Amino acid sequence: MPTISDRGNLMPASPIRRLAPYAEAARAKGLRVIHLNIGQPDIKTPEVALNAIRNIDLKIVEYSHSAGNESYRRKVADKFNGLGMGIDYTDILITTGGSEAIIFSFLACLNPGEEIIIPEPFYANYNGFASMAGINIIPIPSSIEDGFALPPIEEFEKVMTPKTKGILICNPNNPTGYLYSMEEMLQLRDLVAKHDLYLFSDEVYREFCYDGEKHISAMHLKGIEQNVVMVDSVSKRYSECGVRIGALVTKNKEVIQTALKYGQARLSPPGFGQIAGEASLETPPEYFEEVYNEYIARRDFIVEGLNKIPGVYSPMPKGAFYTVAKLPVDDADKFCQWILSDFEYNKQTVMMAPASGFYSTPGKGKDEVRIAYVLKVEDLAKALEVLEKALEAYPGRTV
Amino acid sequence: MPTISDRGNLMPASPIRRLAPYAEAARAKGLRVIHLNIGQPDIKTPEVALNAIRNIDLKIVEYSHSAGNESYRRKVADKFNGLGMGIDYTDILITTGGSEAIIFSFLACLNPGEEIIIPEPFYANYNGFASMAGINIIPIPSSIEDGFALPPIEEFEKVMTPKTKGILICNPNNPTGYLYSMEEMLQLRDLVAKHDLYLFSDEVYREFCYDGEKHISAMHLKGIEQNVVMVDSVSKRYSECGVRIGALVTKNKEVIQTALKYGQARLSPPGFGQIAGEASLETPPEYFEEVYNEYIARRDFIVEGLNKIPGVYSPMPKGAFYTVAKLPVDDADKFCQWILSDFEYNKQTVMMAPASGFYSTPGKGKDEVRIAYVLKVEDLAKALEVLEKALEAYPGRTV
Repeated sequence: MPTISDRGNLMPASPIRRLAPYAEAARAKGLRVIHLNIGQPDIKTPEVALNAIRNIDLKIVEYSHSAGNESYRRKVADKFNGLGMGIDYTDILITTGGSEAIIFSFLACLNPGEEIIIPEPFYANYNGFASMAGINIIPIPSSIEDGFALPPIEEFEKVMTPKTKGILICNPNNPTGYLYSMEEMLQLRDLVAKHDLYLFSDEVYREFCYDGEKHISAMHLKGIEQNVVMVDSVSKRYSECGVRIGALVTKNKEVIQTALKYGQARLSPPGFGQIAGEASLETPPEYFEEVYNEYIARRDFIVEGLNKIPGVYSPMPKGAFYTVAKLPVDDADKFCQWILSDFEYNKQTVMMAPASGFYSTPGKGKDEVRIAYVLKVEDLAKALEVLEKALEAYPGRTV
Repeated sequence: MPTISDRGNLMPASPIRRLAPYAEAARAKGLRVIHLNIGQPDIKTPEVALNAIRNIDLKIVEYSHSAGNESYRRKVADKFNGLGMGIDYTDILITTGGSEAIIFSFLACLNPGEEIIIPEPFYANYNGFASMAGINIIPIPSSIEDGFALPPIEEFEKVMTPKTKGILICNPNNPTGYLYSMEEMLQLRDLVAKHDLYLFSDEVYREFCYDGEKHISAMHLKGIEQNVVMVDSVSKRYSECGVRIGALVTKNKEVIQTALKYGQARLSPPGFGQIAGEASLETPPEYFEEVYNEYIARRDFIVEGLNKIPGVYSPMPKGAFYTVAKLPVDDADKFCQWILSDFEYNKQTVMMAPASGFYSTPGKGKDEVRIAYVLKVEDLAKALEVLEKALEAYPGRTV
C-alpha cells in the first residue's frame, strides 16, 4: 500500500472536528447539544439571492470566466468603490469562498518555506492553507487582557527574518471579534511599507462592526496599495456560507495576474453561487439593519452573561460574531470534551471550540474557548445556564 | 513593491489563453470565430438538474458536510456500484470540480519534489495542479501513429526514480480521445502493483465511449484497490461544467481521510452545485442516448473531414470529445495564431488549441492541434472548410 505524504499526515485536522464524535454521542443519549462552536449563522439568506436562483433562465450551466462573471465583478467593484476603495473590476478575482482567495494569495506571493506573521489566536484553517502552500505561519501573541488588540509593532519586527513575506490580519477578527482601530491600521501600514511586505487582509466580517465603530479596510491605507491583498466572501455578509463565493482583491497587477493563473487551472468559480452573489448585492438595507440589531442583542446578552458566571471573563468584541472567553478550568480542550461526554443539565449540553486550536504557540489559550453567538438569545440563555452549571461541576475547575 | 513568488512566476498559463487576444481581435474585425479549442459542450444541461435548482426550498444556504451532502454521496456510491465498483459512500469526497479532486490527491499522496508519470500529451492543467502541489510530472510519450495508445510499460519503468509515487491517466483521454483497453489497464495494474505506486485515474469522460467499447475503470482492477484514486466530475457527463462539482473516490481509507482534512480546511463544496449534481443522477437514459448519437455523428464527421484535407491526419478516437490531429505546418502554435490574425474565409476563422501545450517535452506535438468536437455538425463543416483553405494559404506549410 503506497504511503500518505508527510504533509498529508501533518495537515492539521480542524480543531473543532475532534469533538464532533462527543457531540454525536451526546445526541445519541437524547441530549440537546447547543452549538456555540460554529460560524454557521442562523440568519436567513436574502430572498433576493434565493429568488435569483429560483428564476435562473439557463439552458447550459457553462464555465464562467476564470476570474468570475464580468457583470458580477463590475458590481462588486461598485460596492467596494462605494466604500472608498478605488478599484477596477479587473482588480477582483472571484474565488471559491474566501478559502480559495487565501490559498491563491499564498501561492502567488510566497515560495515554499517562506513566512507570514499572524497575530494569534487566529482562524484555525489558516494553518491548513499554509500547509497546502508549504509556507510557515509565525504567530505573535495578542492577549485577552487588552481584548486581543494588535500586538505592539516591535513584536512583529522581533520575529521577522529574510523569509518573512507578509502579515496576515483578520479584521474584524475570527476568533476574537476584535476590530482594528485606525491607529492600529496606520501602524500596520507603516510596518508593511518599511519592510515592503504583503498585507493580507481577511475582511469577510466587514459588515459586522458594532457600537458605531467604522471598519477600516486595508484597501483604505495610502501608500501601500501594491502591498495589500484583501480577502472577501459572501458567506457571512449574506448568510450564504454554502454558495462558496469569495474574492481576492488587490491593486497589485502582478498579484492578480498570477492569482488568475491559479484560477484558470481550476477553470471557474461556482456558477450558481455567482448568480446568488450577484443578486445578493441588491439586498435591501433593512436586511442588514435587522441582522445588525440581532447580533448586537446577542453579543450584549452573551458577553454580559459570560461575565456574570464566576471565574469567567469575556472582553466586549466590536465586530464579527465571536468572542474568546476565559474559563476557570485546567484545560479547555478537556472541559469542552467533558461537557459533551460527562455533563448534562435539563437534558442539554453545549459545544464550544477550545481556543487552543486558534493558537499556534503550544500551551497558549489553554483556559480559553471561542464562542460563536450565531443563535437566538433564548438558546444563548440556555447555553449560559448549562455552562454555569457545568463549571460548578467540572472536576478540573481552577478558581 | 513586494515580489511575486518564483512558483507564481513559473505557474504555467493555460496554453489556450495565449491565443485569446487574437480571437478577440478577429471578432473585433467582424469575423466569426469557430471555437474548436474548448471543452465546453453545447449540449443542454438535463432539465431535472435545472428544475432542482429552480425548486430549491432553502431558507439558509448553509455549509454542507466537508465531504459533501451524505444523501448525494450515497447516491453517487449507488451509481458507481451499478458499474461494479463496490464502494461505500464514505469512499467518496465531493470536491469543487474534478480539479480540486486532483489537487487534494496530489497533496495527500505526494510530498513536494516527488514525481508522477503521465503519458503525454496530457490535459494541460495537470501542470498547474502539479505546480500548486510542488510535485513534478514526468512525461512519457504516446504517439499519434498508434492513436495515442498506452506507451510500452518499459517506458514507465525507464523513468522511475525513488521519487516516483504514482501514475496518472486520463481515460478516456483529454486531449487525444484515446480509450484504454482491458489489456492496457491490466498492464497498468501489474505495473502499479509491482512498484506499489498510486494510480490516479481521471475518468471524467467515462460516459463518452464509442463503437461499442466498454470503459474499464481503474476501480475495476483487482489487487490494487489501495493504490487507486479515481477523479470524477459532473461537468461533462451532464454538461454542467459551471456547477463545479467533482469527486475523489478511493477505497484507501488513509487517502480519503487525509483528503478530507484538506476538504475541511476549505469547509465545503458548492451547495447549489451539489443539489444539481444529486438531481442529475435522475437524468433519463434518453438524454444520454441523444448525446451519444450526437457525439458519434460529430466525431465521424470531423475525423473523416480532417483526413480528407491534404496533409492532415487524425486517428479515430474511441472516447471523450477531442481528437489530436497532425497538420502540414512548421509550427502549430504559429499556425493557430496566424489563422486568427491573418486569415479569414467567408468572414470566418477557427480557433484551435496547439498541441504543444499538452506536451511536457519541449518540441513535441509541434505539428499537432487538439480539436474539441463540441459544436453542431454544420459548424464543424464550416470549420473544416476554413481549415482546408487556411492550410492552402499558410506560408509555413510543410508538405
